[in-house]
Amino acid sequence: MPAPATFLSYIDDHAEGFIQRLAEAVAIPSISGNAAHRQDVFRMGAWLQGQLNILGVQTKSVDLGRHVMDGQELPLPPAIFGRIGDDPKKKTVLIYGHYDVQPAEKSDGWDTEPFKLVVDSTSGRLIGRGSTDDKGPILGWLNVLEAHKSLGLELPVNLRFCFEGMEESGSEGLDELIASEAAKGKDGWFGGVDCVCISDNYWLNTRTPCLTYGLRGLAYFKVTVSGPARDLHSGAFGRSVHEPMTDLALLMSKLVAPDGTILVPGVDEMVATASAEERAIYEALDYDIKDVEESAGAPIAISSDKATVLMGRMRYPSLSLHGIEGAFYGAGAKTVIPASVSGKFSIRLVPPQTPDKVEPLVIEYLKAEFAKLNSKNKLKIENLHGGKPWVADHRHWNYEAAKRATEAVYKRSPDLTREGGSIPVTLTFAESLNVNVLLLPMGRGDDGAHSTNEKLDRSNFIEGSKLLGTYLYEVGADA
Amino acid sequence: MPAPATFLSYIDDHAEGFIQRLAEAVAIPSISGNAAHRQDVFRMGAWLQGQLNILGVQTKSVDLGRHVMDGQELPLPPAIFGRIGDDPKKKTVLIYGHYDVQPAEKSDGWDTEPFKLVVDSTSGRLIGRGSTDDKGPILGWLNVLEAHKSLGLELPVNLRFCFEGMEESGSEGLDELIASEAAKGKDGWFGGVDCVCISDNYWLNTRTPCLTYGLRGLAYFKVTVSGPARDLHSGAFGRSVHEPMTDLALLMSKLVAPDGTILVPGVDEMVATASAEERAIYEALDYDIKDVEESAGAPIAISSDKATVLMGRMRYPSLSLHGIEGAFYGAGAKTVIPASVSGKFSIRLVPPQTPDKVEPLVIEYLKAEFAKLNSKNKLKIENLHGGKPWVADHRHWNYEAAKRATEAVYKRSPDLTREGGSIPVTLTFAESLNVNVLLLPMGRGDDGAHSTNEKLDRSNFIEGSKLLGTYLYEVGADA
Ligand SMILES: [Zn+2]
Ligand SMILES: [Zn+2]
Ligand SMILES: [Zn+2]
Ligand SMILES: [Zn+2]
Repeated sequence: MPAPATFLSYIDDHAEGFIQRLAEAVAIPSISGNAAHRQDVFRMGAWLQGQLNILGVQTKSVDLGRHVMDGQELPLPPAIFGRIGDDPKKKTVLIYGHYDVQPAEKSDGWDTEPFKLVVDSTSGRLIGRGSTDDKGPILGWLNVLEAHKSLGLELPVNLRFCFEGMEESGSEGLDELIASEAAKGKDGWFGGVDCVCISDNYWLNTRTPCLTYGLRGLAYFKVTVSGPARDLHSGAFGRSVHEPMTDLALLMSKLVAPDGTILVPGVDEMVATASAEERAIYEALDYDIKDVEESAGAPIAISSDKATVLMGRMRYPSLSLHGIEGAFYGAGAKTVIPASVSGKFSIRLVPPQTPDKVEPLVIEYLKAEFAKLNSKNKLKIENLHGGKPWVADHRHWNYEAAKRATEAVYKRSPDLTREGGSIPVTLTFAESLNVNVLLLPMGRGDDGAHSTNEKLDRSNFIEGSKLLGTYLYEVGADA
Repeated sequence: MPAPATFLSYIDDHAEGFIQRLAEAVAIPSISGNAAHRQDVFRMGAWLQGQLNILGVQTKSVDLGRHVMDGQELPLPPAIFGRIGDDPKKKTVLIYGHYDVQPAEKSDGWDTEPFKLVVDSTSGRLIGRGSTDDKGPILGWLNVLEAHKSLGLELPVNLRFCFEGMEESGSEGLDELIASEAAKGKDGWFGGVDCVCISDNYWLNTRTPCLTYGLRGLAYFKVTVSGPARDLHSGAFGRSVHEPMTDLALLMSKLVAPDGTILVPGVDEMVATASAEERAIYEALDYDIKDVEESAGAPIAISSDKATVLMGRMRYPSLSLHGIEGAFYGAGAKTVIPASVSGKFSIRLVPPQTPDKVEPLVIEYLKAEFAKLNSKNKLKIENLHGGKPWVADHRHWNYEAAKRATEAVYKRSPDLTREGGSIPVTLTFAESLNVNVLLLPMGRGDDGAHSTNEKLDRSNFIEGSKLLGTYLYEVGADA
């Protein structure tokens, strides 16, 4: 069922008003990671709740308690739950978004004031912190609600909303809230939810809409080699004691090969090789080695084979060495033998890998390699944190609906993508509600979320609002 | 020729006065590395020059110009030249010392005020910054001069002095000054110098006096691997690009083995293996594996063979990995792929190695190893700084004199030691004046130069003053 023409033209006709509303939202510096801005996050939550109420959504602000940040105890911004529609004949779609943003200061290198939405009419860019991550997409949903309310149109589905204000700072309290709400079953706010739609990621490039059906998980390790009681002078001790850095460099060199192969036995082997059919998906993506190299800023792709490079990012696990804690890290030439050094590395996981399955392999391997060194230093391995990977069934009606909606609005089929990073709430919804979760991005790959000069293209905001609405009609048609 | 008994008893009888003078010197916080204390360094130089003049030494304060430190242009503290005696029938001994000190604040962990000399009568320690490095030894020479002047004794040798105020901060300007002064030949302040004595190092342990006849040199390298234009997120880029840290960890792992063997071809090979006779010197040293482990604070000696451990420190080159610049070094778990990372390592050199001979071996090897990685990242190798090793002939009359003096004062033969670190001025004197240089320590191995609670044992100060005077008599006897 296509969206009504009146809905689509309402969006076009009210674009200026929508941009004005986005400017209001961007003007509230709801930085969750800075204690000094905590009240702004609350203000943003209240603003959002007010908008939802005006548009006919019943809401509830859920207190998530308090936490400690920067040495201060602070109240957590609330989760904003919303519901509109209770027709048992309709499908029920749960929408997630976050109303907090990353820090931003003009002095970081912004060309404009980060918390003043600048409409660049030449480039068509709406520039400001939160424009694409994640206020633009949230406001896309408001635009859909406003159109229906103003036009007197019935929504094609029942909607539930879950908006949080701590996504950029670890989503504190959210997992527990979702789990406990899901446990209430029909009586909870998520009762009857048939599918979830999250708009908090991006197209791979600047051209082609996509649907994202997979995210990698993570297992983050710290491997510490300790020797002397304190840092030593390399003149006085060099070649008379076992040096922790020597041992650690050797251990770190045995984790991953320059071509990306993970050297920890059993880790790569856990993942099935891509079939020819699956490989074809990556061959067909509108994303190329040169796109990867352009975004990395250098011709350093791991392979000259496109599918290898894209599958390396999306479909296979990866192991990255991040750095060393405890060693000399400054400029200049210090002749220290550091007493205790900790290598940091992480493995991005894909199904069927989980942190629990990978951890013993890493620990056993590092212990065995360390034993080979015959060092008198001490070894300690810690798993700092982790998260499971997520892959959804992209043949599900939820994805089919999003595919038809994309074709209707953008006149082209979306790419089906997996992402290399993590959005932990995705897995939480999938596991707690046991329904299909769709990642339906609004913005482009060059939006610069978390970076300076974050932007959302005007066309992505407007066509994206049409996309979200059309997606609801396509889901509704499936009922 | 033994020192006269009157000299020895003068030193004993005037110990309290000598300690009082040391307290005066320690009270001047002549920290060369802190711009805020630069005037104190000047004050210390003037104090020292005044003391020398009172004791009959002709002096000259040599302006060394200006330099920039902590972003400020500052005047360099002067070198203080001194001369006493011009008898052509006597030998001429050049004495070096430095009147600046390392920084120290009570809050660093000192038990007492660092710039107030505390006499601990229980332990016999004289505690304070500079007590052993290097004000104590300088004042030892003043004690010798005072005894001779008060007793009306003729000095057994002609003396020349060279004291500097920037040793703890790179000895700026000193090398050039020594070279230009040496070039003046007989007309310069160093004209006619027969040997040099430097008292600015320590016994190996707390028991046995030593003479030091060797110091290792240094070649400090920075190896940089660069890839992307900026730091990348490991989720979005892991296994799709060549990661600089992966390459660098591999390169660093190929430099040195856990047992201390240097893996750069040609570097260890440049040094002859110790003969059985030479090995016996190390076997005989009053310094054991347990001393090394005690000072390292852990049982991490590179070998269970004493001579191997001591030769590793003193007689063979060593390669230490110091750290990485540009990688993640903080606490916590950051999932960054650093764009450009620089490994820092240095090689301590022994004859016949020099920075110039070692550098091409290191560069060629790292380039070859990097080529094997098939990485698209870029490699850069820099030699940050270096210095040649120094070894003196310990059968020279200068050492024989010091040996006899030690036997006379301490009733035991000194250990003959080489040190793992560097005192660059040693080599400068040896090469500029082409005479034998002796390192004749006053303090003990646990004095804590550069550390908190720096001390000089009262007995080392008093017996050490006798040692310095007696050494002059033994040199004089040789004329
Ligand atoms: Zn986001
Ligand atoms: Zn974000
Ligand atoms: Zn010193
Ligand atoms: Zn020093």
